[in-house]
Amino acid sequence: MADAPYIVGVDIGGTKVACVLADAEGRILARRWQPTRASEGWQAVVQQLFEMTEQVLAGTLLSQVRGIGVSCGGPLDSQRGIVYSPPNLPGWDAVPVKQLFEERFGLPTRLENDANATALAEHRFGAGQGTRNMVFMTWGTGIGGGLILDGKLYRGTNDLAGEIGHTTVLLDGPACGCGKRGCLESLASGPSIARRARELANESPESLVWQRATPDEVTAQHIVEAAQDGDTFARFVLSEAATYMGIGIANVAQILNPERVVLGTIAVKAGELVLEPLRRALAVHAWQRVRGVLQVVPAKLGDRAQDLAAICLWLDD
Amino acid sequence: MADAPYIVGVDIGGTKVACVLADAEGRILARRWQPTRASEGWQAVVQQLFEMTEQVLAGTLLSQVRGIGVSCGGPLDSQRGIVYSPPNLPGWDAVPVKQLFEERFGLPTRLENDANATALAEHRFGAGQGTRNMVFMTWGTGIGGGLILDGKLYRGTNDLAGEIGHTTVLLDGPACGCGKRGCLESLASGPSIARRARELANESPESLVWQRATPDEVTAQHIVEAAQDGDTFARFVLSEAATYMGIGIANVAQILNPERVVLGTIAVKAGELVLEPLRRALAVHAWQRVRGVLQVVPAKLGDRAQDLAAICLWLDD
Repeated sequence: MADAPYIVGVDIGGTKVACVLADAEGRILARRWQPTRASEGWQAVVQQLFEMTEQVLAGTLLSQVRGIGVSCGGPLDSQRGIVYSPPNLPGWDAVPVKQLFEERFGLPTRLENDANATALAEHRFGAGQGTRNMVFMTWGTGIGGGLILDGKLYRGTNDLAGEIGHTTVLLDGPACGCGKRGCLESLASGPSIARRARELANESPESLVWQRATPDEVTAQHIVEAAQDGDTFARFVLSEAATYMGIGIANVAQILNPERVVLGTIAVKAGELVLEPLRRALAVHAWQRVRGVLQVVPAKLGDRAQDLAAICLWLDD
Repeated sequence: MADAPYIVGVDIGGTKVACVLADAEGRILARRWQPTRASEGWQAVVQQLFEMTEQVLAGTLLSQVRGIGVSCGGPLDSQRGIVYSPPNLPGWDAVPVKQLFEERFGLPTRLENDANATALAEHRFGAGQGTRNMVFMTWGTGIGGGLILDGKLYRGTNDLAGEIGHTTVLLDGPACGCGKRGCLESLASGPSIARRARELANESPESLVWQRATPDEVTAQHIVEAAQDGDTFARFVLSEAATYMGIGIANVAQILNPERVVLGTIAVKAGELVLEPLRRALAVHAWQRVRGVLQVVPAKLGDRAQDLAAICLWLDD
């Protein structure tokens, strides 16, 4: 079945689950999605996934299907296909996703963490096309990464390569959700941007941000929108986060010397408002010879990324 | 000649040049070395290398030689075999080392930067044996790195992967020789250890260090020896440098998730005096899941590293 024309892609998220049937060019032939029944436990979610998989497979001969690709938040074991308690999927302790799908559908199944799978998708279909050494970074609620090195996904020793959001950027910096201090994620993620705005609320009463949200309800989205409307305070907060992002990327660049860094959500939404200060920080913290071969660009696939990510697990051979 | 039994290894250093003839098991059959005639310009040094290469080749049929491996400080272009002004080789602007050797000896020649070549040697013959994902770091006058990822040397886009010594560890930290601030090298290299001792000289008049050297002449070697003799001040200075090294390694580990980090000179000489504080810093700055699969160990090859490094360029196929 290695050259069978169709692939099933399954995306397991904390709020949404989706299944697609696609061909090897990434064309989506059928798609189903539902809110994740996360509170009902992993068995219920796997049941959801099975039903949606059956629906997208309806009318397709199984012999025409190359395999099932499953993209899910880590930590997980890609080799054995087991998911270990991702923060967004409480109670998923050692769920053998690969085995469950293989037993149910008789189709070979691969499991990959979502940042890695999205890196593959941006590399093949998106902003990383044509590169040999590419770093993909999610930039939203969390900051994760997927590394394409010498043209191939690099997973590390136990699937933890690319945890760029949890490199230390500011010694003794803010507490991070992971338990460390001063992680890039604690300085530049969406929630960190909102936290920083809250911290500075008293010093910025005139900002547009506080006409649109209280300090309790403010999100990175409010900051980005106010910055786009020209608000000085919002631009300052965004620029500070982008500067830390630039420092974190500079460190990655000094270690991996990539030709492209592809940045997720916040870079896509805020564009030059974050890319400009980010590049300035990169100029201070990375060598000219390293920057000279490096482009930092927003991701391209947008909403299509999740669908294509899982598919890409069967396009890499 | 791909399976010819012998290999020539050439090591170009700022103070010493060496040539060896070896077999594919790394046994050295002949060896020559000389002080580098660096002040006479690159032509004189290349002439030295040619003469030594002729000497180690004496009596060997060229058809029995697989190739010539040349290890040299970067920056350089490994693909085209050109050396670009390493700091320790003034005046080497775009010297086409590969072409010069190929024209002179008619043997295929490969050029690699010394940290990468030593990483290959430690991986094949030394402290990195049996690993799939290994980071080698020089730790002496400079802090450089070589990355073995998924079993192969990873060079990056223009041969600059592994510049771990020039990641930013302390924002607005000390000026680094490279022009940046707060680089790992500016906090933990041999000269940085000596500088830190000098800065604190007035606060530590009773230290053994100052019975053995003036602040003007103190080197990392004095600090390591005094620490080995139990000197509290020397131990403090070493431990501070090792802590920064641990932070730098933690960041590499979060990005690359290696199974082993192999550390050069200072770790070899100081052993647990640096490894203990280094591991403590690693425990604070790297995830348990990342540390759990990671060993940090001193290099094993010592003086043999340079000879084997150049040889390894022809053992990797």
